[in-house]
Amino acid sequence: MFRKVLIANRGEIALRVINACKEMGVRTVAVYSEADRNSLHVRFADEAICIGPPRPADSYLNVPAVISAAEIADVDAIHPGYGLLSENANFAEVCRASNIKFIGPPPEVTRLMGEKEKARQAMKKAKVPILPGSDGVVADEADALHWAKKVGYPVILKAKAGGGGRGMRIVRTPEELPNLYHSASTEAANAFGNGELYMEKFIERPRHIEFQVLADEHGNVATLFERECSIQRRHQKLIEEAPSLQVTPKIRQEIDHTLRRCLTEIGYHNAGTIEFLMDEDGSIYFIEMNTRIQVEHPVTELITGVDLVKAQLRIASGEKLSDILPAKLEIRGHAIECRINAEHPVKFTPSAGKITAFNVPGFNGVRVDTAQYAEGVVPPYYDSLIAKLIVHGNTRAEAIAKMERALSQFVVQGIETSIPLHQEIFQNEDFRHGVFDTKFMERFLAARNS
Amino acid sequence: MFRKVLIANRGEIALRVINACKEMGVRTVAVYSEADRNSLHVRFADEAICIGPPRPADSYLNVPAVISAAEIADVDAIHPGYGLLSENANFAEVCRASNIKFIGPPPEVTRLMGEKEKARQAMKKAKVPILPGSDGVVADEADALHWAKKVGYPVILKAKAGGGGRGMRIVRTPEELPNLYHSASTEAANAFGNGELYMEKFIERPRHIEFQVLADEHGNVATLFERECSIQRRHQKLIEEAPSLQVTPKIRQEIDHTLRRCLTEIGYHNAGTIEFLMDEDGSIYFIEMNTRIQVEHPVTELITGVDLVKAQLRIASGEKLSDILPAKLEIRGHAIECRINAEHPVKFTPSAGKITAFNVPGFNGVRVDTAQYAEGVVPPYYDSLIAKLIVHGNTRAEAIAKMERALSQFVVQGIETSIPLHQEIFQNEDFRHGVFDTKFMERFLAARNS
Repeated sequence: MFRKVLIANRGEIALRVINACKEMGVRTVAVYSEADRNSLHVRFADEAICIGPPRPADSYLNVPAVISAAEIADVDAIHPGYGLLSENANFAEVCRASNIKFIGPPPEVTRLMGEKEKARQAMKKAKVPILPGSDGVVADEADALHWAKKVGYPVILKAKAGGGGRGMRIVRTPEELPNLYHSASTEAANAFGNGELYMEKFIERPRHIEFQVLADEHGNVATLFERECSIQRRHQKLIEEAPSLQVTPKIRQEIDHTLRRCLTEIGYHNAGTIEFLMDEDGSIYFIEMNTRIQVEHPVTELITGVDLVKAQLRIASGEKLSDILPAKLEIRGHAIECRINAEHPVKFTPSAGKITAFNVPGFNGVRVDTAQYAEGVVPPYYDSLIAKLIVHGNTRAEAIAKMERALSQFVVQGIETSIPLHQEIFQNEDFRHGVFDTKFMERFLAARNS
Repeated sequence: MFRKVLIANRGEIALRVINACKEMGVRTVAVYSEADRNSLHVRFADEAICIGPPRPADSYLNVPAVISAAEIADVDAIHPGYGLLSENANFAEVCRASNIKFIGPPPEVTRLMGEKEKARQAMKKAKVPILPGSDGVVADEADALHWAKKVGYPVILKAKAGGGGRGMRIVRTPEELPNLYHSASTEAANAFGNGELYMEKFIERPRHIEFQVLADEHGNVATLFERECSIQRRHQKLIEEAPSLQVTPKIRQEIDHTLRRCLTEIGYHNAGTIEFLMDEDGSIYFIEMNTRIQVEHPVTELITGVDLVKAQLRIASGEKLSDILPAKLEIRGHAIECRINAEHPVKFTPSAGKITAFNVPGFNGVRVDTAQYAEGVVPPYYDSLIAKLIVHGNTRAEAIAKMERALSQFVVQGIETSIPLHQEIFQNEDFRHGVFDTKFMERFLAARNS
């Protein structure tokens, strides 16, 4: 096991990793921006090094500053957490060149998975189901019509160079394709300097289902079941749960077989998440792979009993999965996570400032992951997540009841939080019955505002 | 299930029961003394009724006041928690007469188990191993010598009417018996108005091992494994864990068989705990039964996944164990609880007053049961327990590491607590290796003060 690990992150995930290290007897080094001087990840690490001004680009994303800190502190390894530098292949390469173990996959794999179309082709090659679509870029309007016919309407046109919805059009009939093709291409050219489009089958009401994987450095891969993450607002997950009501043991087994083969082929190491869309018929299609620990990893921990962050550290230090995982992985009960954000529950405006009261709920089956505390400060520079409230029950109904109880006992004063929003969502009958998709929040918010 | 339950208790256990009720859709009624007006059990219950002045005898132990509150609030049932009225058979009888379900065993069984010698005989009859000793009271010095020879030295003389160590003498040789017999008898006569003594085998270094049981009202009994509670100071448990390193699967199975038969015979209902002493050879002997939920019930919950308080409510409302428990009860990992008391960690003097900062630890495998909060007040009238810190790991070593991490992150300011004492105990090599008995704390404190 490592002697000393630097945690290149902040907030709850930095503290999560520090705690795992502490419990394994590994010394910890926190890095922090000037805005995070009084943060708990700084207070609870064995050492802490300031790496720059508040702006992420000047501190947490500043590769030379992080690497210098690692060298000064003389660490064996760096845990990147999620976000920030966690999926930056260049950073992983600099770690490698500096003889510091990067706790994650090899940079080549991170790079492959970062390029969406290459990732898609790699998955297709490994027989992971992908969304039907054009083989790469569509040449012109006629080619688009040809592919749309083959894939079946509705389809979605997407900018090759794109993101954030620009250059994106849903096409429901051949008649409307020419116009939509041209407007998407023009928009893409204006936004990204590249008007090329590709096409995918469009799913009206998809669910977001993702599978947790662990791969050791000896060629062994395991899947730790799925998470249901369809409750999202603007592609930001709000509520995650495990297992998914929609995933049958058969699907689970098929995905397990496919992913194990695929990730062995790709040479994947460490923790990762494969995200899928599930259509109304229960078919699932690869969308992307996240080559890091996820925000929502605790729901998987609660249903499997596996500590994913400790598993990451053990894998990176050379241990085998067979020594890390129980002999038989089983799903126990049901877990739900609510992301508690520092933002207005109706207007969604960020709410930075000083926390004046902070009382977290406890008792049986309740877990809170947070680096916040009474008198703590939420700086305006970073993402708005201030706590994760996670519950575990024997059934989904019990987990829901437990979450409602816990939300009602979570007191945060001084700033606005998403707690009241979660309380509203938990009263929604569709949510309670598990009848939802990634458009749920759109409908929910529209109904709320009407 | 009940419509509405009154919780005849305060502090963390009152909130524990309120939370279980909330999660089951049962309305809750808190009762409180004037000292507990701002307590969380009052704030989080659906209704709350003041039942009198701070002194327990005037409020929480005042049967007419509690029953009046139950009648005013029109509840179906009363949960007594632990301590206070929980083992008061008269109270259970008044509940019965008032047509309010007492969540616990029938008063007859509570009464039987409350009379130590009768309980011992009942257990003996049911073939539960009891400490060898005199058959009831020893008649005189000669009779004492006769029994001591039969039982084998060392033996202990105890006052029939006694408690608190008065009228109690350890006898190691026949020569010293006459003097010790007379001094014990005189002391007992002075203290309790009754000089009668009985005799038991004396175990030099016993462990305190207890078994959790659940019995439904249809004749079914289950044991939920054991807890190791040897870390005690003056008969007050400080640290509890499950499972015990000393209990083999064979012992576990034998005790399970014996207790199931015995409790069916006795007509036991609801949750209960059978306390045993284990000698240096691994033999175990019944000492007493607690006919209520225990303070340390969470360690059993964490290794079995069974919510014991919800089980109590379900049993009392007529459900069968087969509907409450999983098909196969299994031990998963290892759990440890530290009782966080409001008392000086060296002098053990109670520390009442206002809490000025209160930050509980969280993250994977950490549970906190508490009704305290920042700005909360610890009144001087009640027991000193302010929080239970409970951890779960895959192994005992992992649980210990987790507890150390969690203790170091538990911040309580404004009052003194036992947190530093726990931190010291967790550094003790004997404790870490599981080498201890009920005299551990005596030796630990003597070494600390020398």
